Amino acid sequence: MTAYEELEARFRRITNLRHAVSLLQWDLATMMPEGGREARAEELATLRVLAHEMLTDARLAELLDAAEAGAIALGPWQRANLGEMRRAWLHASALEGRLVEAVSKANAAAEAAWREARPRSDFAMIRPHLEKLLALTREVAEAKAARLGTTPYDALLDEWEPGGSSAEIDRLFKPLAAFLRPFLEAVLERQAKAPPAHAPAGPFPVEWQHALCEKLMAAVGFEFRHGRLDVSLHPFCGGTPDDVRITTRYNEADFTESLMGVLHETGHALYERGLPAEWRYQPVGEPRGMSVHESQSLLLEMQACRSREFVAYLAPLARTAFGASGPAWDADNLFRLYTTVERSLIRVEADEVSYPAHVILRYELERAMLAGELAVADLPAAWGDGMERLLGIRPPDDRRGCLQDIHWYDGAWGYFPTYTLGALTAAQLFAAAKRADPSVPSAIGKGDFRPLLAWLREHVHAKASLLPTGELIREASGRPLDPTLFEQHLKERYLG
Amino acid sequence: MTAYEELEARFRRITNLRHAVSLLQWDLATMMPEGGREARAEELATLRVLAHEMLTDARLAELLDAAEAGAIALGPWQRANLGEMRRAWLHASALEGRLVEAVSKANAAAEAAWREARPRSDFAMIRPHLEKLLALTREVAEAKAARLGTTPYDALLDEWEPGGSSAEIDRLFKPLAAFLRPFLEAVLERQAKAPPAHAPAGPFPVEWQHALCEKLMAAVGFEFRHGRLDVSLHPFCGGTPDDVRITTRYNEADFTESLMGVLHETGHALYERGLPAEWRYQPVGEPRGMSVHESQSLLLEMQACRSREFVAYLAPLARTAFGASGPAWDADNLFRLYTTVERSLIRVEADEVSYPAHVILRYELERAMLAGELAVADLPAAWGDGMERLLGIRPPDDRRGCLQDIHWYDGAWGYFPTYTLGALTAAQLFAAAKRADPSVPSAIGKGDFRPLLAWLREHVHAKASLLPTGELIREASGRPLDPTLFEQHLKERYLG
Repeated sequence: MTAYEELEARFRRITNLRHAVSLLQWDLATMMPEGGREARAEELATLRVLAHEMLTDARLAELLDAAEAGAIALGPWQRANLGEMRRAWLHASALEGRLVEAVSKANAAAEAAWREARPRSDFAMIRPHLEKLLALTREVAEAKAARLGTTPYDALLDEWEPGGSSAEIDRLFKPLAAFLRPFLEAVLERQAKAPPAHAPAGPFPVEWQHALCEKLMAAVGFEFRHGRLDVSLHPFCGGTPDDVRITTRYNEADFTESLMGVLHETGHALYERGLPAEWRYQPVGEPRGMSVHESQSLLLEMQACRSREFVAYLAPLARTAFGASGPAWDADNLFRLYTTVERSLIRVEADEVSYPAHVILRYELERAMLAGELAVADLPAAWGDGMERLLGIRPPDDRRGCLQDIHWYDGAWGYFPTYTLGALTAAQLFAAAKRADPSVPSAIGKGDFRPLLAWLREHVHAKASLLPTGELIREASGRPLDPTLFEQHLKERYLG
Repeated sequence: MTAYEELEARFRRITNLRHAVSLLQWDLATMMPEGGREARAEELATLRVLAHEMLTDARLAELLDAAEAGAIALGPWQRANLGEMRRAWLHASALEGRLVEAVSKANAAAEAAWREARPRSDFAMIRPHLEKLLALTREVAEAKAARLGTTPYDALLDEWEPGGSSAEIDRLFKPLAAFLRPFLEAVLERQAKAPPAHAPAGPFPVEWQHALCEKLMAAVGFEFRHGRLDVSLHPFCGGTPDDVRITTRYNEADFTESLMGVLHETGHALYERGLPAEWRYQPVGEPRGMSVHESQSLLLEMQACRSREFVAYLAPLARTAFGASGPAWDADNLFRLYTTVERSLIRVEADEVSYPAHVILRYELERAMLAGELAVADLPAAWGDGMERLLGIRPPDDRRGCLQDIHWYDGAWGYFPTYTLGALTAAQLFAAAKRADPSVPSAIGKGDFRPLLAWLREHVHAKASLLPTGELIREASGRPLDPTLFEQHLKERYLG
């Protein structure tokens, strides 16, 4: 066995452990009875520690050196695989054991405190936790930056968005922020003059919603031989590429939420499912990063399924599914419902026009905190100021302000930008798909996603982690990531 | 850390891996889409190999020696734990890698061939596989016997029934076999003269059956905060003690099957759940063995829930659950239904009177094959002769003969006796519980299982693997395992 082959065998084992973790997490969120929580936490910790031990094994580091020395003999996929192995090793080995343990404990304490503090809107309660977590996160960022040769913030970003940089994010977010605020005002003004959208009257039984969701998933290309749809408190896409588990939650008063939520997760699922089978158990066979992953869910939900074409296809299906009729069920009204823009306080409820403002705010704030330019004590005020500047509203309390998201309290720093990078990427890839195959929109109008999926499979899914994100986008769409394509999409949909 | 403490830490890890395996298997049988099969097999194999590597690690053997040298300082639970660790190590380390691999491959091939051969009743097709598997099983048995200091058959038995021996089984099975055949004839004669039992007329919707099953599980003491009931092709009890997953299958034409099946699995579940929490992650905290495990399911199903008292409690609940009425729903008729005895060809469908004959036959045949006294080629004829002798019928084909059970084709040699050891143990423990608390039967008649469960918790469940099986039974019931208690139970129920 060559050093490279031995590495493949070792990473295959690690991937199998990660797949087991993924299934145990899915079960925890969907099936597990409450009394299994403690035991499950220990099972998950055991598997994660084992995977970490395998990754930081001294022999693995030797094999990486040896394989890199002989990389000239490898093909492009193997070389990319070796690069991803090295990246995984750098992240895993950058931190001393005592720091990993301190972060893990601080995260657990902060998350528990956050669950209490949020409903009470009690920032003072969470503040010392966040300060501690920030100090530790800074240590992590510096340790990783030294190993990766990046800035501390970029080192955190690299975990979610390999090769990502704040310089690149600034290049994209600055013009976007300048565009969004006046655009939002123009859209709100225009919507105020248009007839209001009417919500169809429920109740909508869960079983009927589930049946409609499964029907649409099948139309889009979800293979039920390789996946499931279940219920969880927070929707997610989990499982493994050959067994993709997506979840949703149902509101019997409003079927429109679960429907778009399921289509969003189906976008994630199609990406997982489309990853190249021959690289299934290797790092290079994994999704490129969180921005590309999010681009696949947003491309399906926002670009394809909130289009006039798709809503026209959906309307009669929804009427049949719920045995309903009347003007609220017209395609025109449903389209207005699905494209209503608001100044929202809550990110997860935001429409596609205001969503980037939420992300830009968090990106600015986490960078400032990490750089020591913003003290945790000043976070609530900075949050309010930012909302005022970016969206023209100010949250009346911290529950609807800086306490709303779990990310910082759960240790996910450097994650937020990937949502909007994903939205930009989605717009650019969808435009490219339509340019390559002009039948894409009309097919979607007939519930036929094959042309779109064929393009995505070839240009995105099958590439997995072969190329850096920027190159993947450039090869697929013919140019670097460009925020004007997203702006163009918004202009056509909301002011067209 | 002492050597013993280090062993506890290592076995805690191994147990967590086994718990993960258990959940992945449960998911495979209940939730997993077909297309996930191959990936799941690899996940399971990875976790099992890891657990095996941990168990056969050279350092673990050193720790065992060191801990045993200092065992004088340990308490009784710790000493028993150390004994179970040594037993697990002996089994894991007894076989050379090439033998483990050969068995694993031969099993997989034989099982696949069996799945094809059984429906076709084609023994010739499976015969070479079984011959190969027998030769390998003999090698395994001899290797383990040399390490355990037992006979080869007893070494196989030890995997399922720690400390079990064919001498002890012979002591129990010989008088039982002599008792059973004339007893069966007497019961059949008596039943022929009695009015026939009538099956209530269906259909019985799955949801209603499920609701009734859950109601009875709750009455018996199943905690839904720590477990679930789901559907699988072959019913089983899986999961972990804090999260016990039982399954059943529903037949819309006959609710009586799923009901007793669920009560059977609930007996297994109560045992798992009652294992001592303070020894949760150690070998000594595990179920004593397969015969005690089976005793807990048979005690609940056969002893408690097929009793006149319980069926009288059940009858009105069943009528309500299915909105039914009429003579078929009378407690008397339901009791007759649940205690009908037949000369059956199929073990898994057999009643409690004829079931031991099926087991005794398989026990005799597997011992003879292993000892080289019965050639695989002669198995079908020996099977027919044995059925004739023990039950008075002869299977018309091998599908209903020696091809009916998966065990031998899947490598489970030495397993069969535990079913009937479990039945004997169940009768003896139930008699002891009633002697200790005479309110047990009348409470069961009111759907109150607390007196029974309290006794089982104290005398069986909480003991886990502290004592050898024989001692556990003697301490709980006041005497060694005695087949006449089972015979007494049958006489009272079927000829009383």
